[in-house]
Formats: sequence, structure tokens, C-alpha cells
Amino acid sequence: MDPSLVKIPPMKDLTVDNITENVIRINSLCRDERMKYVLERLVTHLHDFARETRLSTTEWMTGLQFLTEVGQICTDVRQEFILLSDILGLSLLVDSIDHPKPRGSTEGTVLGPFHTHEAEELAAGASMSHDPHGQPLLVVCTVKDTAGNPVPDVKVDIWETDSTGHYDVQYPNHEGPDGRCIMRSDADGVFWFRAITPVPYPIPHDGPVGRLLKKLGRHPFRPSHMHFMFEKAGFDHLITALYLRNDPYETSDAVFGVKDSLVVDIGTAGPEVAEKYGVEEGHALLRYEFVLVSDEETRALRARNSKEALDRLGRRVKIVNGLPVPDLD
Amino acid sequence: MDPSLVKIPPMKDLTVDNITENVIRINSLCRDERMKYVLERLVTHLHDFARETRLSTTEWMTGLQFLTEVGQICTDVRQEFILLSDILGLSLLVDSIDHPKPRGSTEGTVLGPFHTHEAEELAAGASMSHDPHGQPLLVVCTVKDTAGNPVPDVKVDIWETDSTGHYDVQYPNHEGPDGRCIMRSDADGVFWFRAITPVPYPIPHDGPVGRLLKKLGRHPFRPSHMHFMFEKAGFDHLITALYLRNDPYETSDAVFGVKDSLVVDIGTAGPEVAEKYGVEEGHALLRYEFVLVSDEETRALRARNSKEALDRLGRRVKIVNGLPVPDLD
Repeated sequence: MDPSLVKIPPMKDLTVDNITENVIRINSLCRDERMKYVLERLVTHLHDFARETRLSTTEWMTGLQFLTEVGQICTDVRQEFILLSDILGLSLLVDSIDHPKPRGSTEGTVLGPFHTHEAEELAAGASMSHDPHGQPLLVVCTVKDTAGNPVPDVKVDIWETDSTGHYDVQYPNHEGPDGRCIMRSDADGVFWFRAITPVPYPIPHDGPVGRLLKKLGRHPFRPSHMHFMFEKAGFDHLITALYLRNDPYETSDAVFGVKDSLVVDIGTAGPEVAEKYGVEEGHALLRYEFVLVSDEETRALRARNSKEALDRLGRRVKIVNGLPVPDLD
Repeated sequence: MDPSLVKIPPMKDLTVDNITENVIRINSLCRDERMKYVLERLVTHLHDFARETRLSTTEWMTGLQFLTEVGQICTDVRQEFILLSDILGLSLLVDSIDHPKPRGSTEGTVLGPFHTHEAEELAAGASMSHDPHGQPLLVVCTVKDTAGNPVPDVKVDIWETDSTGHYDVQYPNHEGPDGRCIMRSDADGVFWFRAITPVPYPIPHDGPVGRLLKKLGRHPFRPSHMHFMFEKAGFDHLITALYLRNDPYETSDAVFGVKDSLVVDIGTAGPEVAEKYGVEEGHALLRYEFVLVSDEETRALRARNSKEALDRLGRRVKIVNGLPVPDLD
């Protein structure tokens, strides 16, 4: 690129005290207002982090080596950066920001690194788990809107581990989906299927993120849970999970995902349920009512939260493509 | 790990507003005081970044994918994370924090990603570049301490590109070092060698960092320079470089390294120099006097700066192994 074509403000003699403003100034050549704002905050926080810790060259290099290893262990079926984001609480935070939930709706939680696009759509009542060692579980759910109306034809993505605490993709000889499926809610907003009772499991901890947890004195376990993801035009994308009450890791989830409203008891099928869903009486049963929020309501709530947060930061804000940028006019 | 063996404060129902304190609390199980403090500031800034930008799930995923690519392009001879740190001004900042320079000493600058451990020690006057297309340059330098005394037996690591702007390791068929050497200062603190006149060059921009620069509207060029690194027991490790005056990129270095005190003119050898160093009169000549700071002086200056910075943050500080941690006593 011809330097004469680039309008860069002259910079030299950058120091601990003036480097940040200069990096922000050169980055402000960016024509994407949103990206410019994100980079401005990124550079500010990155530099403040170094200044406030007095980061040493050795620590800086240790950090870069760590990030390199995190990147290098990633494969098509292992995303160590999501894992890192999860154990630092960033994933939960971003979900909470991007998918604010009004009172009465189902709360969201972390996606985790094991969602795939391999799952097949199954008919109501089908079994999504082929693990003969799992404890069979009947799952019967409904999907409603915030006014209490059933929502039909919602695409529901569901995934869980096998009875040993491993997702299908964690097996080296993995060939097709298991422990995952796609269901569609029926005219009454109902979807139901057979699964196995979730078990607690450690997040993959044989890589750099596992080593970090160990250094921090933290365990890598997640409490027993089943993932659910809901999609339907007009409704905000809901990524959530249900957690089993009294799991040993219920209050120390390695990725900060547990919310009281998502903690459930495993019940048993009474005579009516047994007959209706074709299981024996006393069969383990999980019931839950999910409440989706409309896109419109989410957008309004997100914009209101954005404005409040940027007001606190002392920045006038405008919303561009649903995301805040400073309003310079 | 048995959860009963881990003393984790119960956590549930984490939100935008309470996630940060909870992540910091769980990380405070870490027994390394310094690491605990670094993680506390890291989590605080990471979360504030997400809150202040209202980071969307899509942007979060774009960021993680970007970091994954940065990690995956790294090899033994390509360190894209250093490059990323360089173009965000973090490298210059960390060097400035860790190697504070008192007035009168030689300023430091970015290491860059192309230092290797392959360079061989050459005798005074040897040639470190075998590029027949480079413009021959005689380099004559001295090393002194802050009191003006020559410093003998300093290990000086020197590296530069060839005349096309590429370091030796950037060639796929690279077999041994070229454009780099190690010299030792003599009894008068002098070291001298033959090299080629540095040329401007782009940092590697065929990877994710290059794409980021393009999106930001920034060029990837560094002004012409030669790297120097100085080591001797009792002196602070000095990483620096000399830049050629009037380079087209002198005031827009992609990695923020240029300092006025490090900008030099290429002169020509007069009759005395020509005879002493065995070159023709008029031969291109670079002279510079480097001034090293003692370890002791650096340590004191670093500790004073640390204390001031943490005072501003409202934290009482103690220095452990040369680095600050909050003083909780």
C-alpha cells in the first residue's frame, strides 16, 4: 500500500502514557463505525490491563504462548477458545448481554463447545441416545410465548453426553450424531423424546485450558445438564440448558452456567403419562415449559440496556444494525 | 477432582452485573499471588470490554475464530500472536513497562517476531549479510554505562532483513542464519561489523493479522531498521533498534516502534574511518553509542513506577519477585 494514500497521523516516541491514544487514533481510519468502537474499547482495556499489572516481558510471552497453544489444539470438533471464554465467564456474560430476558421468560445459558450441525430431525417420541448404559429418561416439554400461548413449529436443537460424560464428537472414531437431535414443537407447543439422564462431566482438561484451571485450583466439572436451543422466526434465539437439582457441581459449574430457574427435578411417570407416552409407570421423567421472547421485545430490551451502559461510560450512543456505536453528531 | 476437596464459594444465577466478582472469587483459589492478581485484572478488563461494547454473540464468535486462526498459523518460525500484540501497541507498552529507561540511556523498542536463536558469533569486522544485492554498510558502535564508561564483553544480538525486506526464516528453504549475528563489545566497548543498509518492509500480512490491518485501513509497513539486543550480567536486558531518518514509514510504523532518539542518519566513511576499518572512503557508515542501564537502577525505577500505578488504582502494593501484587496485610 502506498503510504501517501494512507492518512495516518504522524506518530513517534510512543510511551506508557501516550501509546493507547495513538493506537486508537491510527485504528480510527477504520470505516466500520462498530468495529472502530469495539477496537477502541479493546485497545483501552488491553493496555490498561498491562499498565495495572505492570505486565513483564516474561509474563507477556507466557500469555502469547498460552494463546498459541489454545489456537493450535483447536480442530473441527474441539474449540478451545470457546472453552477458555467459558471458564473466564465471558461466554455467560456475552449471552446475557445479547439475549436479555424479560421476567417470566426462560433464561439463557452457555452454548459450550459441543454443539454441532450434525443432529438429525427426529419424530416426536423418538430416542436421541443409543447408549445402552444410560438411565432412560422421558422428556416432555412445551414451548410458549410470554403471553402464555403455545408456540408451534419451533426448531429445537437438543444435545447431551452419553452415560460416561462424553459427547459423540469426543470419540476419535465418531461417525455420526448420537446424544443429539432436532425436534419440532407440535400444534400445542409440545415436543417430547427419549434420552438418558444427564451425568456430570469434566470439560476437556487435557489441553491448555485444563492446565490453567489446575493452576487456578479450580475443578473442570460441569453439573449434569441437557442443552436446548430454540429457533423460530420472530422469536429471539434461545440457547439454554436444564440442570439436575442436587448435582455435586450444582453451585460450582466450571463455566458458570447454572441458574435456579433452569434447575429441575427428575420425576417419575404416573399412570396417565405412562399411557400417553408409552412408558412404564415409574419411568424417569423430565418436564419443562420453555418461554420464548419475541425478537421485537428482545431488540427493545437490548437497545435500552445498551443505552444505559454507554450512558454510564459517558458516551452518547446510537444503535446501528442493533449494536451501539458512539454518536458523534 | 473430588468437589468436596475444592473450596469454592457457592455460585448460581450469574448475571451481567455479578459474573465478574464471582469469576474473580473462584479464581482467588489460586495460590500464586501474582497470577491471582493478573487474572483478576484480566477478567475485570475482559468483562468490562464486553459490557461496554455490548458484545454480540456473533462478534464474540468472530473474535474467537480470529484468535483460533492466529494460533493456527503459528509455526516454529512464525509467531502471529506477537505480530497481533505488535500492531495493537501491546508489545511496545510491555517493553516500556518492564524496561523503564532513565534519561540519557538508550531507549528500548519492540522485539518483533523475527528474533531467532540461530545467529552465530562473528569476529569484529565480519560481514553478517550475504545478500549481494544489499547496499554495503559499515556499522561501528560503542556500548557505555550511564556514567559514560565503556562496557566490554556485552553480548550483542543483531538482525536485519535482506535487501528485499525478508528475514532469513521467511524463506521456505531457509537452512542457516543470514542477516543476523552475535558480536561482543571489546575492551573499549566497541563492536563493529559489515551489514547492508536496512530497507522498509511489510510485516507478514498474508494471515489473520494482515486481514485485520486491512479492515482497519492501516498499512503493514515498518520503516527501515536494524535490531539490536544487549545482554550482560548486571545490566538490564536492552531490546532496541535503529531507524533510518526520512524513511517513508518513519511516522507510521505498523508496530509503533520508532523513537526519535533511535533515528539515525547514514553517513559516509572519511579517510580515518576508511583506513581504520578497511573500507573505501565514502563507504556508507552507521555509528551509534548505546547506553545500558544497570539491573539495580532498572529494578528501582520499575518498582517506583509499579507503586505509582497501583496507587492510582487504589491498591496497596508489595513487590514479589520484582512484580507487584496487592498487599492485603
